[in-house]
Amino acid sequence: MANAIRALSMDAVQAANSGHPGLPMGGADIATVLFTKIMKFDPKAPHWPDRDRFVLSAGHGSMLLYSSLYLLGYEDMTLEDIKNFRQLGYKTAGHPEYGHADGIETTTGPLGQGLGNAVGMAIAEAKLNAEYGDDLVNHFTYVFAGDGCLMEGISQEAISLAGHLKLSKLIVVWDNNDITIDGKVSMADSTDQRKRFEASGWNTIEIDGHDPEQIEKAFKDAQTSDKPTLISAKTTIGFGSPNKAGTNKVHGSPLGDEELAAAKKQLGWAYGPFEVPTEIMDNWRLAGNRGTKERSAWTERLNAAGPETKGEFERRMRGDLPEALKGAMASYKKKLAEDKPKKATRASSQDALEVLNGAVPETIGGSADLTGSNNTNTSQTKPYSADDYSGRYIHYGIREHGMAAAMNGIALHGGLYPYGGTFMCFTDYCRPSIRLSALMGIRVGYVMTHDSIGLGEDGPTHQPVEHMAAMRAIPNLLVFRPADAMEAAECWEIALERHKQPSLLALSRQNLPALRTEYSSENMCLRGAYTIWGEKDADVVIFGTGSETQLAVEAAKELTNEGISARAVSVPSMELFAAQSDDYKRTVFGKAKARVAVEAGIEMGWSKFLGDTGRFVGMTGFGASGEINDLYKHFGITTKAIVEAARAQL
Amino acid sequence: MANAIRALSMDAVQAANSGHPGLPMGGADIATVLFTKIMKFDPKAPHWPDRDRFVLSAGHGSMLLYSSLYLLGYEDMTLEDIKNFRQLGYKTAGHPEYGHADGIETTTGPLGQGLGNAVGMAIAEAKLNAEYGDDLVNHFTYVFAGDGCLMEGISQEAISLAGHLKLSKLIVVWDNNDITIDGKVSMADSTDQRKRFEASGWNTIEIDGHDPEQIEKAFKDAQTSDKPTLISAKTTIGFGSPNKAGTNKVHGSPLGDEELAAAKKQLGWAYGPFEVPTEIMDNWRLAGNRGTKERSAWTERLNAAGPETKGEFERRMRGDLPEALKGAMASYKKKLAEDKPKKATRASSQDALEVLNGAVPETIGGSADLTGSNNTNTSQTKPYSADDYSGRYIHYGIREHGMAAAMNGIALHGGLYPYGGTFMCFTDYCRPSIRLSALMGIRVGYVMTHDSIGLGEDGPTHQPVEHMAAMRAIPNLLVFRPADAMEAAECWEIALERHKQPSLLALSRQNLPALRTEYSSENMCLRGAYTIWGEKDADVVIFGTGSETQLAVEAAKELTNEGISARAVSVPSMELFAAQSDDYKRTVFGKAKARVAVEAGIEMGWSKFLGDTGRFVGMTGFGASGEINDLYKHFGITTKAIVEAARAQL
Repeated sequence: MANAIRALSMDAVQAANSGHPGLPMGGADIATVLFTKIMKFDPKAPHWPDRDRFVLSAGHGSMLLYSSLYLLGYEDMTLEDIKNFRQLGYKTAGHPEYGHADGIETTTGPLGQGLGNAVGMAIAEAKLNAEYGDDLVNHFTYVFAGDGCLMEGISQEAISLAGHLKLSKLIVVWDNNDITIDGKVSMADSTDQRKRFEASGWNTIEIDGHDPEQIEKAFKDAQTSDKPTLISAKTTIGFGSPNKAGTNKVHGSPLGDEELAAAKKQLGWAYGPFEVPTEIMDNWRLAGNRGTKERSAWTERLNAAGPETKGEFERRMRGDLPEALKGAMASYKKKLAEDKPKKATRASSQDALEVLNGAVPETIGGSADLTGSNNTNTSQTKPYSADDYSGRYIHYGIREHGMAAAMNGIALHGGLYPYGGTFMCFTDYCRPSIRLSALMGIRVGYVMTHDSIGLGEDGPTHQPVEHMAAMRAIPNLLVFRPADAMEAAECWEIALERHKQPSLLALSRQNLPALRTEYSSENMCLRGAYTIWGEKDADVVIFGTGSETQLAVEAAKELTNEGISARAVSVPSMELFAAQSDDYKRTVFGKAKARVAVEAGIEMGWSKFLGDTGRFVGMTGFGASGEINDLYKHFGITTKAIVEAARAQL
Repeated sequence: MANAIRALSMDAVQAANSGHPGLPMGGADIATVLFTKIMKFDPKAPHWPDRDRFVLSAGHGSMLLYSSLYLLGYEDMTLEDIKNFRQLGYKTAGHPEYGHADGIETTTGPLGQGLGNAVGMAIAEAKLNAEYGDDLVNHFTYVFAGDGCLMEGISQEAISLAGHLKLSKLIVVWDNNDITIDGKVSMADSTDQRKRFEASGWNTIEIDGHDPEQIEKAFKDAQTSDKPTLISAKTTIGFGSPNKAGTNKVHGSPLGDEELAAAKKQLGWAYGPFEVPTEIMDNWRLAGNRGTKERSAWTERLNAAGPETKGEFERRMRGDLPEALKGAMASYKKKLAEDKPKKATRASSQDALEVLNGAVPETIGGSADLTGSNNTNTSQTKPYSADDYSGRYIHYGIREHGMAAAMNGIALHGGLYPYGGTFMCFTDYCRPSIRLSALMGIRVGYVMTHDSIGLGEDGPTHQPVEHMAAMRAIPNLLVFRPADAMEAAECWEIALERHKQPSLLALSRQNLPALRTEYSSENMCLRGAYTIWGEKDADVVIFGTGSETQLAVEAAKELTNEGISARAVSVPSMELFAAQSDDYKRTVFGKAKARVAVEAGIEMGWSKFLGDTGRFVGMTGFGASGEINDLYKHFGITTKAIVEAARAQL
């Protein structure tokens, strides 16, 4: 049966004339045991919430997954897709893409990410198990990882977090084949991986990755461990290829027609391209049907749990929000209009989270060791720990990358909405995972505080300057920079409501005045940009975001006092503004003869607002260490500078 | 003597009303032993090439370094600087900033980076030791790291690389104080760090970090190890503070006047703010003078090595380029004008490197396991390994972040020019270190191949779309995207000549025709943008970069054939163009009535070229897996689209 994976993978890579045959050939025995004897799933119900999760962290070996899904009987993975591996318009992308086909649990390829996602999936499983019990949530998360996954730094963050949290239902197979693209692993690494994992609290097992009995026993032993398990499986990359197996020649290139034929001969596979004999196919399909009974029993248990539990469980798995949210948010916004709090937006974000966490039980917060700075905890969020998986707050440790990858995994698992914080500057540390949130289109909340030189004395290493631009550059990521408490609340509401997009909130360290002091039932931030002060036909329009919106308003007032009509526009989200109608956009730009934008970051990304003649007040290089008022003055981000920039255009 | 560090640190943090007193107070005993008994340096000659390097990886404890430098007699660290800790205009930034003061060997603060830099410094030391012998290069690299440094993923990349390379002169002290910002380390981590380091081939030692004898013995034992050493030093954070020591309260906030007084009392320090009694100061200054004799002996050895060796050594340490380079490049450019190679720019880059590596002995290349794809090796670059430190090519392994941080360390050490490769998309994985190259202003070469959807079948995870914009967003980073072999050569020449800037070359996977087919003695790429085809007064101007420049030229030709005068401008570097005179810029824009820019990435960053009316041909979202020609057509990046965009404006 394993040779069916090998043959399909060799044929597909050959037909595409690109791809990685080595991994599927080397890992076929492991995959066969895992999919036909160990894992719980049902190809007829691929979204069954209590299915075991499988993550191909070594995403370049995508044909291992595609051929297995096809053989197991996943209906939307067709032979046509396999034959058109890596071709435009087919589900079989070079690396597995979440959403392309059922059974692809996450997008992988950038190494180590899948391992990080799997930690999040296991976190989610333990959390939902604590809430709903073994009857409804009780499954394993399996990972297939390569040497590359284990060399990437993110793997250390992932495994040390998983070990600390004792995620015993996480089982990682390390495809220990001694080969990377450049050659032997020993050229670049001599880590004792078992010892390394054990140092992080993992159970480890070593096996021959081509011996089905050893493989099966290892998985069964792993299932009973009270720790996460690493199975070090010694394999031969390109197993079956007479002349290339065990070398880097089979890592990332097709075998070539001749070697392909020789490999099939050596494997005793006497069939043509993409041909799987009926008997072997039947065995695979039978294996695919193993889970039907278990799923039926699960469905019965769900029904038996009563309509309330069932309804709530299903709502959460769909990702719908509870009814209570709208009302809670409206009340909170009314209160804000009365209180007019002068607060840092990181604190306003915390206030909004207090409301959200009260109304939405599926939120699960956290921070990369900056809880008191990111203000990500609320009264509802007791810690999630190995002793208490029912908690709603994860101390991710100083692991921004691991946190973001885990949040992706939590979101992918379903039933929970993860949000987590660090400093805006350290979006750099987790950027690869933020990108994957956006590429997959999943709901994750990034709480990024200390969002400009406004953080003051920590200096240029900690002061984001280019980070607003760099985040806005990522397609499909909603980037918010709220100006006050009201906007912070509205941005959070949008973040939760967007089911298929990650959101990032850039939040100030310093206090900001309330600018939106009247209640509006409309979520103004949903417009992306809107007039926050002034008359629509003003001669000057000043755009601002976050902590600089107050400067925009002050400057507009000053100009108006001087007899120059001016207007301030708050721009909490460029992405949402870009999606507005042309008519709406025209009302925002108005008939202004002068345009100014102010943001304590670089100009990049502001051109659509400024046009040819507008002026930007912001940063042109790195920041400096100093007191906040000194810095704003030093870098010329002041009301005066805005007023002058406007006057210069008139 | 250690209490002098504690007192100055407490006073400075208190005066600034911000900062991290806990680390300097906890680490003072270690620093005192290290600086007064162990390390080789001379405050009178802070740039002495053979000094031991000290890296405060836990950069938030900056006062540990500043107070030590002041006490040791580094002249440019004054009491005035200490008193104005974290204030604008002083050298004593919140986190140590390279270039602010002598003795600050690297910029730290973003956790784990210093550890990664130190690996690079130790790599450089071993390399130069292999070239110049013990007489001239023979020093240690010491690191002071915190729990945060060890939790960050980059630390795994750094330590596994160092262990593999057996960098025995690298000695890391782990400030093992059980505390992070959120509270006890045990809230988020339970890693057995000694076991973890041992798994990566390190020697480990455990000591009481407040016992001077144990500290001294540990350093001396570490110096004789044939492996890198981790010294796990048990310390009490905020040592001396009667009510806050050993807690997170002393991590990142001033002690407060009352607690500060109580701490001084407990420490038996009866002196006022910033006061160091003469006797203690004398002892520190004497310790600072320890190295003078050793440095004199070293200078004598350098002189004795003969003028040729001395001259070459000094040239390399200054970072000047050899005379031979100019001629070699000119010959090579002449050859290119004759050959007109049709090649991927990654291959052209390799050809240019062949010339550079021949003329410049201090280059040291490498790749994060993509040697054959990044084309970073040449005939001169035999591998650098634990068996042969004279090599010029580092197999960094699948460690993009660790590679970039190590390259920063190599550059900071001096005497070498590091360059290293990965895929353009994985700039995301090493972005924090690239940012620090730029912030420090150091000469590092980033070779980023597979720079667009042009990589084809690997699909959206591997296709950079937003990465050109995201890289251009980083201040002080030179971002190049050469269009052909001639431009690749010129870009490399600039990268080497820029002493105080890192450079990044975005290079194509796919073959590109020669567009610059005539020799010019001028380095045209130095202009940032220049007319590559057409007449200056053309009605249409088309900007292109890299692989799309050929489309710009084709479109310009097509329009011209149709009777519409058109011109193509190649834009190898936006940063260099921005630095040109207004006159020059005007000649590039000409009098065109229509402007088009084409780049297989997002529009962000192109506004200065397009103005209000120009049009952009490029990407608006993520890519897809497919054959290159299918992809360019699918995403509408074609000559036809450019021509239409131009026509629409006329």
